Amino acid sequence: MKNPLLAPELRELLETNDTENLREFLISVHPAVIADLISALSPAEAWRVLNYTEPILRADIFSHLDEEFELQIVDILGRREAARLIADMPPDDRADLFKRLPEERREYLLPAMAQAEREDIRRLAAYREGTAGSVMTSDYATLSPDLTAFQALERLREVAPDKETIYYAYVVDENRRLLGFVSLKDLILARRNERIPEIMHTDVIHARVTDDQEDVARKIQKYDLIALPVIDDHGALTGIITHDDAMDIISQENTEDIEKLMAISGSHEAGVYLRTPSWIHFKNRAVWVVILALFGLISGLIVQRFEGLLLQFAILAAFMPMLADTGGNTGSQSATLVIRALALREIVPGDIFRILAKELRVALMLGLLLGSIAYGRVLVFGGGSTIPEEFSLGMLGAVIALALALQVVTATLIGAVLPIFAARMKWDPAVVASPALTTIVDITGLLIYFTTIQKLLGI
Amino acid sequence: MKNPLLAPELRELLETNDTENLREFLISVHPAVIADLISALSPAEAWRVLNYTEPILRADIFSHLDEEFELQIVDILGRREAARLIADMPPDDRADLFKRLPEERREYLLPAMAQAEREDIRRLAAYREGTAGSVMTSDYATLSPDLTAFQALERLREVAPDKETIYYAYVVDENRRLLGFVSLKDLILARRNERIPEIMHTDVIHARVTDDQEDVARKIQKYDLIALPVIDDHGALTGIITHDDAMDIISQENTEDIEKLMAISGSHEAGVYLRTPSWIHFKNRAVWVVILALFGLISGLIVQRFEGLLLQFAILAAFMPMLADTGGNTGSQSATLVIRALALREIVPGDIFRILAKELRVALMLGLLLGSIAYGRVLVFGGGSTIPEEFSLGMLGAVIALALALQVVTATLIGAVLPIFAARMKWDPAVVASPALTTIVDITGLLIYFTTIQKLLGI
Repeated sequence: MKNPLLAPELRELLETNDTENLREFLISVHPAVIADLISALSPAEAWRVLNYTEPILRADIFSHLDEEFELQIVDILGRREAARLIADMPPDDRADLFKRLPEERREYLLPAMAQAEREDIRRLAAYREGTAGSVMTSDYATLSPDLTAFQALERLREVAPDKETIYYAYVVDENRRLLGFVSLKDLILARRNERIPEIMHTDVIHARVTDDQEDVARKIQKYDLIALPVIDDHGALTGIITHDDAMDIISQENTEDIEKLMAISGSHEAGVYLRTPSWIHFKNRAVWVVILALFGLISGLIVQRFEGLLLQFAILAAFMPMLADTGGNTGSQSATLVIRALALREIVPGDIFRILAKELRVALMLGLLLGSIAYGRVLVFGGGSTIPEEFSLGMLGAVIALALALQVVTATLIGAVLPIFAARMKWDPAVVASPALTTIVDITGLLIYFTTIQKLLGI
Repeated sequence: MKNPLLAPELRELLETNDTENLREFLISVHPAVIADLISALSPAEAWRVLNYTEPILRADIFSHLDEEFELQIVDILGRREAARLIADMPPDDRADLFKRLPEERREYLLPAMAQAEREDIRRLAAYREGTAGSVMTSDYATLSPDLTAFQALERLREVAPDKETIYYAYVVDENRRLLGFVSLKDLILARRNERIPEIMHTDVIHARVTDDQEDVARKIQKYDLIALPVIDDHGALTGIITHDDAMDIISQENTEDIEKLMAISGSHEAGVYLRTPSWIHFKNRAVWVVILALFGLISGLIVQRFEGLLLQFAILAAFMPMLADTGGNTGSQSATLVIRALALREIVPGDIFRILAKELRVALMLGLLLGSIAYGRVLVFGGGSTIPEEFSLGMLGAVIALALALQVVTATLIGAVLPIFAARMKWDPAVVASPALTTIVDITGLLIYFTTIQKLLGI
């Protein structure tokens, strides 16, 4: 959200070259707020503002910008300037930015950086998107196990200005194998000459570099952690993931889940609804809508097959929308609950029979209720339709009600089974998007509807 | 998630009365894991396990349990035991538990507690659900502004064992008015005799007790905070909200948003899919499904009104499912994107014209694409249907395609407008549930479909 009051004020300070007030302002306001403000300026103006700050704060504000805007600013900078700015960024943000830079730009900038930073960027950027490795930072404090509490505090004091968090410090041996961790609180409460191995927690909740980022974020949430260490295949500490990154991961995954549920493809990294071009919006949405429309043709063919029946009982057409909607609604409800429970790790695919038993009970109640409504509807409003003489309105109502109840039960069970099936296949359960499900239960619904009616009326 | 290996092991330790191993186990494993494990036991067994731990750890494990199970355990405890357990819980969890207790149980337990705790519970429990006040804790460290860095560190050392977080300490005057805050990192980096006012940050990001809990959680996320202070109407500090609670709030709000999107009512506080009785599931889902089914009757009446048209062109019935699905899909997509962008505070209701301009462009592209598909479909598969001689298949295809394109544009715009309207009315935008939207665009779709065809074919 933009702060409409401060943006013009900032521009004025810039235009009148009011160095003193500009510096004062940049120090007193939170970097995230400044990032919001300068996002409203041109890249060149934004860079001019950033130049009034010290390099570390500058990189901090910069790393709060949208990636798009970061790239635009880097584009207008000279080699040394850009390399310096990137070097000062938090390691995880730095690696993310690097991944987005065009190849030739990367090769141009890397030689201007110190070797340690070059290697750190290369290492972090190498992990596959969506893994713990791709979101971790290399900015953490380590301690050797032969220190005392006092020495450890002194060491943290030394490294504090450079580290993202010093509230947890990780104890490693000479091969960087993770032995345990101590919190700053532990150190403050310990006696001065108590040794680290006596204080540290050895049962460390950790992740592996290849773990799924959402699993790791859920761990941080479950155990109320400020940071979580990430180890490689040899048990060596390679990075940490902090609570604020975990929160961003959870928000991002939630957005992607919701969008998948609604059959929108593409990933959603930053807040960009209005800034995304219409063409991209179109592409993200068209894929699924078209696939589903093609499946919708199957529904059409089914209806065409039963044209004769429809011409005989025109009232059947009047119930098609309710049949389709109700199937889609009840199926989406059970699918949503199952998908969400899977995402929150409340259930696992192995619970399938308990889930089906529960959904069956709910479906029978819903089917009974909705069937009764349909029955009443036929009796009350059906009088106007022409139906062949040998059939009574009550009979037709009972048959339509039964078909609807069957549809509700089928749709609810399909809605529950598909996400579990997807989870078992190691797909994301949210691919069982509500629109996809709606289309599937439309097809099953029409088949159930017409065949039930045909069978029971003996036509 | 249950750990299937450890639960029987735990029960065995309990049965053989293996005190030593039980104690060892309870200290070495994270409280959240122990809470998961004992959830599989009976309340009486769980309480027996908890009795092997020290009171503070016992209350910590206990507050990681589901609220349902917490209530069951409190039910079997004596007055003193229950009062002691509750007194040791973190203040925010304690107040939450109290709110769920039956009135007479509350009145029975309160007198067994110390006055300070009684008042703290009453105060925290008084805030309305969903506000910052209802989720804050009173467990934070304060500092007086006349201390030095060294004295402040000493003070934090003293209070550390009792406080949820000492990583931020809040500086308040004699009336508890919030003057600023210092982080433990600031204190460690400061010179021993530097005074608090020289170190503290005065531009404190804070919330008010009546603020919406999701707004507060998003603030913690945006500014990467470990905790956020909450002040009352007089500017006095009354509590803090910690990063882990913010994460839980965001998860909970996301679940509720997703469920609302799918027309499931009720709130979702804890992980309870399987434990929620089928009857409650039924109730949460039936409300909307029935309302929507009743609206579906309107679609039915529209179809009935055009029965004559359908009897003349049976092929029109074959396109009804695709029309309904496509309208529902495209409308849900735009609604989802707008709802999510509103939730993430990317857009505000005032952006409505920019949003509509974007959605119109996307809708025109989608309409063109889907109309073309429908046209092709009529030409390829339409041959089998009987249509009156004076109309050609191509003409019918063009008219159906145009009606579908109009439906896509209308549905997309309705999908974008409704959540913005809801937001402006201060309702939750997610009430524009996908099923509700589907039902609405079904009605508009059928009207568009039949009237377009009637007008253009001149019948």
